[in-house]
Amino acid sequence: MKVLVAGGAGFIGSNLIDALLEKGHDVVCVDNFFIGTKKNIEHLRGNDRFTFYEQDLADLDAVRDIFTGERPDMVYHMAANSDIQASAAAPEVEYKNTYTTTFNILEAMRQTGVKRFFFCSTSAVYGDAQGSEVNELYAPLAPISYYGACKLGCEGLISAYSYMNDYHSMVFRFPNVIGPRLTHGVIFDFMKRLRDDPTQLTILGDGNQCKPYLHVSDLVGCILRFTEDIPAGVTTYNVGGETQSTVTGIAQIVCREMRLKDVAFHYTGGRGGWKGDVPVFAYNLDKIHAAGWHAGMTSDEAVAQTVRDVL
Amino acid sequence: MKVLVAGGAGFIGSNLIDALLEKGHDVVCVDNFFIGTKKNIEHLRGNDRFTFYEQDLADLDAVRDIFTGERPDMVYHMAANSDIQASAAAPEVEYKNTYTTTFNILEAMRQTGVKRFFFCSTSAVYGDAQGSEVNELYAPLAPISYYGACKLGCEGLISAYSYMNDYHSMVFRFPNVIGPRLTHGVIFDFMKRLRDDPTQLTILGDGNQCKPYLHVSDLVGCILRFTEDIPAGVTTYNVGGETQSTVTGIAQIVCREMRLKDVAFHYTGGRGGWKGDVPVFAYNLDKIHAAGWHAGMTSDEAVAQTVRDVL
Repeated sequence: MKVLVAGGAGFIGSNLIDALLEKGHDVVCVDNFFIGTKKNIEHLRGNDRFTFYEQDLADLDAVRDIFTGERPDMVYHMAANSDIQASAAAPEVEYKNTYTTTFNILEAMRQTGVKRFFFCSTSAVYGDAQGSEVNELYAPLAPISYYGACKLGCEGLISAYSYMNDYHSMVFRFPNVIGPRLTHGVIFDFMKRLRDDPTQLTILGDGNQCKPYLHVSDLVGCILRFTEDIPAGVTTYNVGGETQSTVTGIAQIVCREMRLKDVAFHYTGGRGGWKGDVPVFAYNLDKIHAAGWHAGMTSDEAVAQTVRDVL
Repeated sequence: MKVLVAGGAGFIGSNLIDALLEKGHDVVCVDNFFIGTKKNIEHLRGNDRFTFYEQDLADLDAVRDIFTGERPDMVYHMAANSDIQASAAAPEVEYKNTYTTTFNILEAMRQTGVKRFFFCSTSAVYGDAQGSEVNELYAPLAPISYYGACKLGCEGLISAYSYMNDYHSMVFRFPNVIGPRLTHGVIFDFMKRLRDDPTQLTILGDGNQCKPYLHVSDLVGCILRFTEDIPAGVTTYNVGGETQSTVTGIAQIVCREMRLKDVAFHYTGGRGGWKGDVPVFAYNLDKIHAAGWHAGMTSDEAVAQTVRDVL
């Protein structure tokens, strides 16, 4: 099968491409290196089942041209601004890189007759659910970040496009994903700051903010499994592990894996880190469990593995 | 108070402006005459409390310039593509006129410090709820039209912008609105075709499709009442009447008001009219009733009044 991976030079996209090639698929990767990097895909140069287009997906005409030329059987849409903290000061980045890219891909599919679609959504569509264990039917969906807002908008588009054009679409809402090729987030940040000063670490908030972390290898395995035969319409799953990691716990794991001792933790205090961040979050995973999938690693194991991946 | 009405030359927008001026507000109207018309606002020429900009709201720089120059106290955002049937073949219209206009207004508000916002949403965000009586917390929100999809995306943006920037936002989800200056829809269509041929009328579907119609005078009264003092955050209401009209019932009312007799109705058969249309719909109005508001006209009364308004 020929698959198009939008945002394939990014963290999750490039890990997915490795797995798709390993399964024998032909892969067309489209990326503009806004967040994705040449380094993430340089090992694929010379692979004759891998084709790369350096292209901004916010340009509808260019996207349509690629679809017309390549005629993929399926699209994995992994392109988005994934740095919520950065877009808090520049919402246009989400409008362009998260929402418009999705509109353009769905529209190019409509115009060229592509019917199968996978979309990376996010727990951020739920907003600050104040500790509720949210399942896929939770309401109201009240995102508090521009990122979550644009992803919710994308889910709306997927719903309408799938209905109007008989798409088979799979939407995964997942929390923080970590692992090799990670480029930002708390683990990346702690590691960077501890390399600069291995004696102390400043932690935003009170350190008790608690979130589930999923290792990218678990996520990619889940994506491959659930996109083999996507039902008609839109199927949405929460995807994640059952466990969570606290920020202080992450700091301790990072220190342990970096073999640092007696690091002094300083806390800025307060409930959360920055505006638009969701400090406490719990996922209901009954639906994906009932479908027979469980994460292979706990959240803390994923954190530890990531530190080893990135070191 | 100085209010900016985006899409103020449209059907609902121009009716709202008349009411806002009557209440003594200064009104800045922005419209590009995509659906709105010069005729809808020509009676306001010379009114020194009315300012008009002919401007496409999909241009962020231009929108920001208007906000910077006018510094409104509040924004009523009535601009959108409102012709769902037309955009079914051209989804870009919704992307540009429904979603992008909303993003640009919310972003211009952020950049210029405007905090109060009213938004026209729609029952189309609920998708085809198959006869369920949907309230504001109904899930999943699975729009089946590009219009509903883009309006849902707008609601997501309003949620995030309001949280991040302390906006006071009011969102009304309402069904078909009818009344003077109506430009499309089943009543308009029936009247036009009966003028051409008063002996017969072809009706899409089986004529039993049933929807609530709200007269624009009821809607405008409700908007004015609930935007006098908008609470912090986002408040969402279903707005409508308790009754519905069938398509056959509308045809009968149109014939009666046009004083036509013995018109032969021909039915195309099937459940609904066109793909993306929602044939059966019921609204739960408990929240707005509890807040003390009820529609003044039944759905059939609104239909009859509209035929008289438009004749």
